Amino acid sequence: MKNCIFEADALEAWTRDIFAHAGFSNAHASLAANVLIRADLRGIDSHGVARLSGYLRLIDQGRINPKPNFSIVREKYGTATLDADSGIGLVAAPYAMEIVFEKAEAHGTGWVAIRNSNHFGIAAYHAMLALEHDMIGYAVTNASPLVAPALGRKRMLGTNPICYAIPAGEEDAFVLDMATSAASNGKLEIAERAGKTIPEGWIMKNDGKPSMDPAELKKGGMLLPLGSDMDHGSYKGYGLGAMVDIFSGVLSGANFGPFVPPFVGFLEPLKDTPGQGIGHFLGAMKPDGFREINEFKAHMDLWIREFRNCEPLSAKAPVLIPGEKENKMHSSRKKHGIPIVDKVVNELVTISARTGIPMPAYQ
Amino acid sequence: MKNCIFEADALEAWTRDIFAHAGFSNAHASLAANVLIRADLRGIDSHGVARLSGYLRLIDQGRINPKPNFSIVREKYGTATLDADSGIGLVAAPYAMEIVFEKAEAHGTGWVAIRNSNHFGIAAYHAMLALEHDMIGYAVTNASPLVAPALGRKRMLGTNPICYAIPAGEEDAFVLDMATSAASNGKLEIAERAGKTIPEGWIMKNDGKPSMDPAELKKGGMLLPLGSDMDHGSYKGYGLGAMVDIFSGVLSGANFGPFVPPFVGFLEPLKDTPGQGIGHFLGAMKPDGFREINEFKAHMDLWIREFRNCEPLSAKAPVLIPGEKENKMHSSRKKHGIPIVDKVVNELVTISARTGIPMPAYQ
Repeated sequence: MKNCIFEADALEAWTRDIFAHAGFSNAHASLAANVLIRADLRGIDSHGVARLSGYLRLIDQGRINPKPNFSIVREKYGTATLDADSGIGLVAAPYAMEIVFEKAEAHGTGWVAIRNSNHFGIAAYHAMLALEHDMIGYAVTNASPLVAPALGRKRMLGTNPICYAIPAGEEDAFVLDMATSAASNGKLEIAERAGKTIPEGWIMKNDGKPSMDPAELKKGGMLLPLGSDMDHGSYKGYGLGAMVDIFSGVLSGANFGPFVPPFVGFLEPLKDTPGQGIGHFLGAMKPDGFREINEFKAHMDLWIREFRNCEPLSAKAPVLIPGEKENKMHSSRKKHGIPIVDKVVNELVTISARTGIPMPAYQ
Repeated sequence: MKNCIFEADALEAWTRDIFAHAGFSNAHASLAANVLIRADLRGIDSHGVARLSGYLRLIDQGRINPKPNFSIVREKYGTATLDADSGIGLVAAPYAMEIVFEKAEAHGTGWVAIRNSNHFGIAAYHAMLALEHDMIGYAVTNASPLVAPALGRKRMLGTNPICYAIPAGEEDAFVLDMATSAASNGKLEIAERAGKTIPEGWIMKNDGKPSMDPAELKKGGMLLPLGSDMDHGSYKGYGLGAMVDIFSGVLSGANFGPFVPPFVGFLEPLKDTPGQGIGHFLGAMKPDGFREINEFKAHMDLWIREFRNCEPLSAKAPVLIPGEKENKMHSSRKKHGIPIVDKVVNELVTISARTGIPMPAYQ
């Protein structure tokens, strides 16, 4: 399998033009493209331009509104709820983060629940916006059901990620962005493309039996929560995914659990669901509300150095700070370009042909 | 091994008298006893009266201040930091929750970081106080280092629990209270008492090799983060434990990571640590800030029923709602009494003899 290499800025400009062609305003198209390319830069290939053809299909089907009118439907103190008008989360979430920051300036912390939304890309993009304000950022979202609860045998939860972005001083920020399942869908795709089996504990078959076949999910199988089995704490991964679902779905008035609409055009959304679209929950906290910001940052630097210098299991693999690997990937791909797998390149070529917008150069 | 059965109210009254004898004010003694017995009622035996002799030893050594003067050292908007004056977290945390609720009434959410504290018992006690206010409660704490970070070979983090308590309508509240390690210390103790081996993935030896011996932790081994190994997401458990450590320790000005003082009297605390005592981080959010409270509660009920009715892997083990097992245990032990293991009963008898406070009746 050969990858093609794209220069980040050129790929972003092209992606922006594609969103604009699909009906997005210029501002929304720029923002959506920025979120997608950031995922590719950080090495989260499953959440970058690989998603573009899927988004366009949902726009064509009228399931993503390209011209949403975001509205605040409830607002009290430091909290608010935003209706994303069936727009894409890629745009709704950064928009909501601006409200979060206003609230946090006035109340120390700010929180916005979003309903009636769609996929928001990588959670880290939204949470990391807080770093520019010397705040801690928080972003979670629910997602199409693929994960069985502990002891259960039905897809009830999405991979429901949790992200915390915490500023430091001289060191890079601490950025934890993790699915609450044992493994993400993206990891299954990588194994499948490489023709490899996957470790036991990632998925199970429809009948509840374990499977090491990465294609099993497409055959009706399901992902397992972080912890994989009861002995290893799968009720914790389930509990965290459930918490994310409740904040994103129940608190906002979006759908939740098995009612969350599928992200893919070939699956029909359910009728008569209790909420609207999918939901996100975003927040920011000012460290300054608890402690002098410079003291806080100095101790964050100390925290990061202590953990980086922790004695490693293997001299070849030092202990990592959450976000460190992604930051390094970002620098490298910004410089050397973004590798995109053939299958996705072919999708981009198809989009280019259909829209008449010429492909960006690639090697 | 034979258990003795104690009636909850009698055991609580006795525990209160013991704390008062150790120098606690009546109000503090009552609160501390209530927190401990709640742990026993909920089935978290490792955090109930089993801790009492350890607390008394730390009081004797001057490491827990029985007459603390809690002070708010920083307060802005909806946030504050409390110095617990080396008092016990059992008391400091419920005290701080009252400030949390005042803040939340005024700002939609309220948050208090606590430094210079000691063990706070079960996180669920503190988070569940929010339920009486129709709020979502949040409680985390750092703890003595026992857990290795992913890829690391040194005790760097405590079992750093995360608790969310979310109110429902007709159903019991959703209460997730989980250690961020694969298994808690309490589970090792249970296996050791029963003479059983433990599953691989809970602990490793000092040299990084896996171990199935529950006594390995006492021999210098370490707990593994939730996820157990990199293939199964141990970087996620590590990341969550790290997040708890940063909120509890760095944000409050308490100690963090390897600097957190040990809970046990026979281990000397480090000198020259960067912070003060251990730290907690507590919060509450008003669902009403996002959505009509009755709509929220009705959808929480729907959420709970959907998950409870999820097709189970085994007809004998239905899918559980976080907190459900502990609530059932609470009801049962309230009615039938609290079983306490011999080893702990002997400790209580010793305390009784030393203080002259007669043991409560037991069977």
